Amino acid sequence: MSPEIIDALAANAVFYEVFERRSSEAMEALWLDDDSVSCTHPGWPTLHGPAAVQQSWRRILGGPQHLQFIVSDERAHVVGDVAWVTCVENLLGDDGPQGSTAAINLFRRGPAGAWRMVAHHAGPVMQRP
Amino acid sequence: MSPEIIDALAANAVFYEVFERRSSEAMEALWLDDDSVSCTHPGWPTLHGPAAVQQSWRRILGGPQHLQFIVSDERAHVVGDVAWVTCVENLLGDDGPQGSTAAINLFRRGPAGAWRMVAHHAGPVMQRP
Repeated sequence: MSPEIIDALAANAVFYEVFERRSSEAMEALWLDDDSVSCTHPGWPTLHGPAAVQQSWRRILGGPQHLQFIVSDERAHVVGDVAWVTCVENLLGDDGPQGSTAAINLFRRGPAGAWRMVAHHAGPVMQRP
Repeated sequence: MSPEIIDALAANAVFYEVFERRSSEAMEALWLDDDSVSCTHPGWPTLHGPAAVQQSWRRILGGPQHLQFIVSDERAHVVGDVAWVTCVENLLGDDGPQGSTAAINLFRRGPAGAWRMVAHHAGPVMQRP
């Protein structure tokens, strides 16, 4: 595994770690501050731009429910200054398993060379009978 | 709008045009033939690799229902050899409107310089009451 793939997987892991500990400040810091950013929470329409995206995170992270993620099947790809990671988010809430979502997370190298998130798109995976 | 943004939007439009006319051959041709490809149909788990992705398209495009897409809010971004487009897929089926999905489509410049799809992730948007 190349160093840049390892870095991209690490950036992805930080995203879920920040989500779990519900830090709006850390969440904002890991996103690129750029009009190109977009975020699609499960079942939501896509939000565009830093203001809308960060407002959604403040609401979600400030909400009453503590979500824990067991992230699985992470696969990272890097092309130049862009990385994308697909993974499965297995959610555990206060009341037990909350199902799973399929996610794709897109990162771009920021000014300091670190991966910064530019897109997060998570969709619910329907349970098979 | 830069030429490469116009090209990325055109690649995105071709994807939906191919989807509408249900050509498995054209769908396969517009994807990169590379293990990095992934596809998340609404409600499905993410499929990885050309074999699984193309098999899913053959099943969907070979199915009985004709879907028409009114694609809106397309926004394209290009960083080096990667482009991503977010858009809303407003579905019209044989029985009328089928709701909408939020999509992110990722393209990579192929060997011949044209944009080839490397990831498609579409998630259902829940109707607000």
